[in-house]
Amino acid sequence: MMNSASDRAAPRRSGRRPGDSGTRDAILTAARDAFAADGYERATMRGVARAAGVDPALVLHFFGSKQGLFEAAMTPPFDPAEALPRVLAGDPGTAGLRLATFAVGIWDAPESRRILLGIVRAATSDERAAEMLRAMIVGALTAGITAALGAPDAPLRANLVGAQIVGMGMARHVLRIEPLASAAGATVAGWLAPALQHYLTGAAPGADPTGGE
Amino acid sequence: MMNSASDRAAPRRSGRRPGDSGTRDAILTAARDAFAADGYERATMRGVARAAGVDPALVLHFFGSKQGLFEAAMTPPFDPAEALPRVLAGDPGTAGLRLATFAVGIWDAPESRRILLGIVRAATSDERAAEMLRAMIVGALTAGITAALGAPDAPLRANLVGAQIVGMGMARHVLRIEPLASAAGATVAGWLAPALQHYLTGAAPGADPTGGE
Repeated sequence: MMNSASDRAAPRRSGRRPGDSGTRDAILTAARDAFAADGYERATMRGVARAAGVDPALVLHFFGSKQGLFEAAMTPPFDPAEALPRVLAGDPGTAGLRLATFAVGIWDAPESRRILLGIVRAATSDERAAEMLRAMIVGALTAGITAALGAPDAPLRANLVGAQIVGMGMARHVLRIEPLASAAGATVAGWLAPALQHYLTGAAPGADPTGGE
Repeated sequence: MMNSASDRAAPRRSGRRPGDSGTRDAILTAARDAFAADGYERATMRGVARAAGVDPALVLHFFGSKQGLFEAAMTPPFDPAEALPRVLAGDPGTAGLRLATFAVGIWDAPESRRILLGIVRAATSDERAAEMLRAMIVGALTAGITAALGAPDAPLRANLVGAQIVGMGMARHVLRIEPLASAAGATVAGWLAPALQHYLTGAAPGADPTGGE
């Protein structure tokens, strides 16, 4: 609301020095938009620079390469290695609700949702982005949940948790199906909690249901 | 393996008459690839015709418009209005496993997976495709599950089922995270079953856990 069209069209020289975190943020925002709209292969550093109102050399200075720009832009809005053990610590019997509340909160907050949508769109639109995201994010997510759970099948459980959280975000924020899209965050978290609890601590399929825990 | 590069490059005149279902299928396959790779706005009927080796007039003849082509290409590989009541009929207590087995099977079969991936990619890459898919597919899915369940909160439950199934497909077949991507279909269905059962027949969050069923 504060930026008029003429503000946006004018080259942004004042206050945009290398090292200025506002400039860096503007580039990352433009990069997320470009990767989401165009996919990894089609997005260009020049186009990102233009959209951010900066010189292309500055994008190169900050991020080194298109891959470096992509990795910085797609860094998740939380550090899974820090956040997941914290969320999962405490009573294992209510970890599903804590994780559901955390995940719904991350997807519902506009700034982190923007990053997550960029990640999902980029990964869906081309294989190279999907490959990088597998290594970067899924690896960290799996490691965080594996560390917190410690079960031998923790990697598969972590995958299933990720699948549920990605699916909820897709349905609520990309497809925006109703009534899920308009439901209160606490309601959605309440519905997700038992499913996540199942993936975190439930009996593996085929296991003797009387022999567990 | 059977088509050499020269076969593919040659115009396919023989055996390609209007009304030939092989031609129609070739166009739909090319359209799915184009919508998946380029999104709805960027994909063109001319490009689809070229990829399918047919005259652009034939694409227009079959599908009438780009929107008609999109709708035909994105028709799901099963009719939700027919399939879901069939899958959900029977013991409500095991409906989750039946639905999980059905959903994993649809995602795992190469031909239907190709269609589902096209749908997900198109919906993720632009808003117009997402809008059409909401109306076409999610509506039918929700109606099918609502009809089978009959509960007042069936639309939200159906959304949650859809979110879980889309998330599983994304994680297993788009992101291809391991070990989920390589797990046996029956194993994945076994893990999903209790989550889907929860969405289909479980207590709503906040409901008195001692008052239900």
